[in-house]
Amino acid sequence: MLLDGTRVAHAIRAEVAPRVAAFHSAHSRPPALHIVLVGDDPASHIYVRNKERAGTDAGLRVKVHRLPATTTVDELLGTVQALNADAECDGILVQAPLPRAIGKHGTERVFDAISPAKDVDGFHPHNVGLLVQGRAVLKPCTPSGVIELLERTGQTIAGRHAVVIGRSEIVGKPMALLLLQRDATVTVCHSKTPDLASTCARADVLVSAIGRPGFVTPAFVKPGAVVIDVGINRLDSREAAVALFGANHARLTGFDERGSMVVGDVHPAVEAIAGAMTPVPGGVGPLTIAMLLKNTVTAAESIAR
Amino acid sequence: MLLDGTRVAHAIRAEVAPRVAAFHSAHSRPPALHIVLVGDDPASHIYVRNKERAGTDAGLRVKVHRLPATTTVDELLGTVQALNADAECDGILVQAPLPRAIGKHGTERVFDAISPAKDVDGFHPHNVGLLVQGRAVLKPCTPSGVIELLERTGQTIAGRHAVVIGRSEIVGKPMALLLLQRDATVTVCHSKTPDLASTCARADVLVSAIGRPGFVTPAFVKPGAVVIDVGINRLDSREAAVALFGANHARLTGFDERGSMVVGDVHPAVEAIAGAMTPVPGGVGPLTIAMLLKNTVTAAESIAR
Repeated sequence: MLLDGTRVAHAIRAEVAPRVAAFHSAHSRPPALHIVLVGDDPASHIYVRNKERAGTDAGLRVKVHRLPATTTVDELLGTVQALNADAECDGILVQAPLPRAIGKHGTERVFDAISPAKDVDGFHPHNVGLLVQGRAVLKPCTPSGVIELLERTGQTIAGRHAVVIGRSEIVGKPMALLLLQRDATVTVCHSKTPDLASTCARADVLVSAIGRPGFVTPAFVKPGAVVIDVGINRLDSREAAVALFGANHARLTGFDERGSMVVGDVHPAVEAIAGAMTPVPGGVGPLTIAMLLKNTVTAAESIAR
Repeated sequence: MLLDGTRVAHAIRAEVAPRVAAFHSAHSRPPALHIVLVGDDPASHIYVRNKERAGTDAGLRVKVHRLPATTTVDELLGTVQALNADAECDGILVQAPLPRAIGKHGTERVFDAISPAKDVDGFHPHNVGLLVQGRAVLKPCTPSGVIELLERTGQTIAGRHAVVIGRSEIVGKPMALLLLQRDATVTVCHSKTPDLASTCARADVLVSAIGRPGFVTPAFVKPGAVVIDVGINRLDSREAAVALFGANHARLTGFDERGSMVVGDVHPAVEAIAGAMTPVPGGVGPLTIAMLLKNTVTAAESIAR
C-alpha cells in the first residue's frame, strides 16, 4: 500500500483555502509569506520557486527577497527585522542553507532573529520549546506533515513502536517529539547507532530522514511495518540508478529522459515487505509544502487576532 | 556497583565554589537565587528549605519569597516581573506545583514570564528549544545531573542504547535529548508502551522517571545494564515497605524510626543484576540540587558579562 502524499496534501490545501479567503475578506489583503533567498544555490532556487508557486496557487501573497551571496549577517538581520516590523508580513521563511560565509553562528543569529509569531518553519528556539511542551502553534513542516499523512491514511500511532533514523533539528528530533505526543514509544537512531538494521526492524512505524539513497533495505523493516521516507536524494549516475532499481525498472526511463532522478532513503525492495510506505517523489515532499501554507495562514490569523 | 550521587554532587559543588567566590569579589555581592514559594504544600516547603540551605552553604544569597495560597496569577506575574527587573537577582525559581487555583494555563503564564536568562530550572520554552538544538546555557537540573553522574563515574553513553521511562517536560524528554546529544540511541517509553519490561530490558542505560515505588523489577533490566533511578517516592505503609524489601531488610529499621521512608522506582532486587545503579536516597537527588547551584552561578556570570 502506497501512502499518497499528494492526495493528503490536496486535502490539507482544500482546508486552507477557505481560511485564506476568510482572512483576505476580513483584512482586505491575502495572508503574506516572505521568503528570504540568499545566494545562488541551485537546489534552494528550485525549492523557493516551488514554495512561491504553491503559495500563489493557494491565494497567498508570496514575496521573495533575493539577496546576493555576498550579503552580510548584519544585512540579513536588517532584512529580518524589517519583516518582523512589517504589519503586512505574516510569515517569514529564510531558505537554508545560507552561504558558507555566513557561518554556523551567523545562521543561528539570523534564524533566532525571526519573530516566533512569524516563524512558519517552526525553527525558532521558542517554538521548538513549545513543541516539546506540546503547545506549539507553528510546528516544523516536514514532521508535522508526516503526522498528517499517518493520521489521514488511518495508520495507528498510539501504542506503536516508532523508530526515527536521523536526529536533525529540522526533521528527526521534532518527528520523534510529535510521535511521542501521539503516544508512540519512540526510538531515535543515527550514525552512531551500532545495530541500526536490527533496531529499525523492531519498528511498527519507521521514519527515515538521513539523506542516503536506498540506505533502508529490507533488513531494516519488520514485515507489515509502515515506512515513511523523508529522504529526497538526487541521483546523477545511471549506474547508481541501475544498482537501486535493477536494469529493467520503469523508473530508469525517467532517468534516461532527464539524466537524473530523485529517490528516497528507502530501497525499492522494501515495498514488497512493508505494510504501507510513502513513495519518493509524491510522499512526504508535497506535505512539507502544504504544511508551510497552513502555517502561513495560522500565523496570519494569530497575528491579526 | 552503586553510583554515588552524593560524591559527584560534592565534586560539582567544589567546582562551583571558586566561581561563586570570583563573582562575589568581582561584583561585591554573591550570586543571588530567588525562590518563589506559593501556598502550604509540605513537600514543596521541604524542597525549598533544602535548596535554600544548599545555596547558602555554597555562598549564594538565597531569598525565599513566601506567598499565600490565595495569591492570584496577576500577583505572581508581578513578583516574577519585579525579579526579572532586579539587577541583583541572578536566578529565579518558582517552586512547582503552584496551588490548584492557579490552573494549568496560569502556571504556564507564570513560568513563561521568567526571563530565560534567569531561568535556573531550564523550563522556559526558549531554553527548552535551545536544549533541543544543543546550545542551552541553562539546562533542567535533574537530567543534566544524571549526565554528570554517568560521565563522572565513567559510564559510556555514546553508542549505547538508552531507554528512558517517563516523558515529562521536567525529566523524561530533556533526559532523552541530552542522551541523544551524547550519541546514545534513545528510546522513550511511557504509560502507553505495550511491552514495557521487554523494551526496557534492551537498554544498556535505563533511566526511570515515573514515580512508582519498586516498579522497575529485574524483568526490566538487562544483566550488566546501568540503571538510573530518578524516582523519589515516599512510602507511609509498613506493609508496602516489607513487600518491597522483605521482612528482614536493614532499611525497615529506618522505616520504623521515622514511620515512613523514601524509595525509588527501581525494585531492590535489581541491584543483583544491574552493572551499576543509583541508590535512593543518595543518587540523583543530590545532583539535582548541585546543578541548581551551578545554573545559578552560570546565570549570574552570563548576566554580569
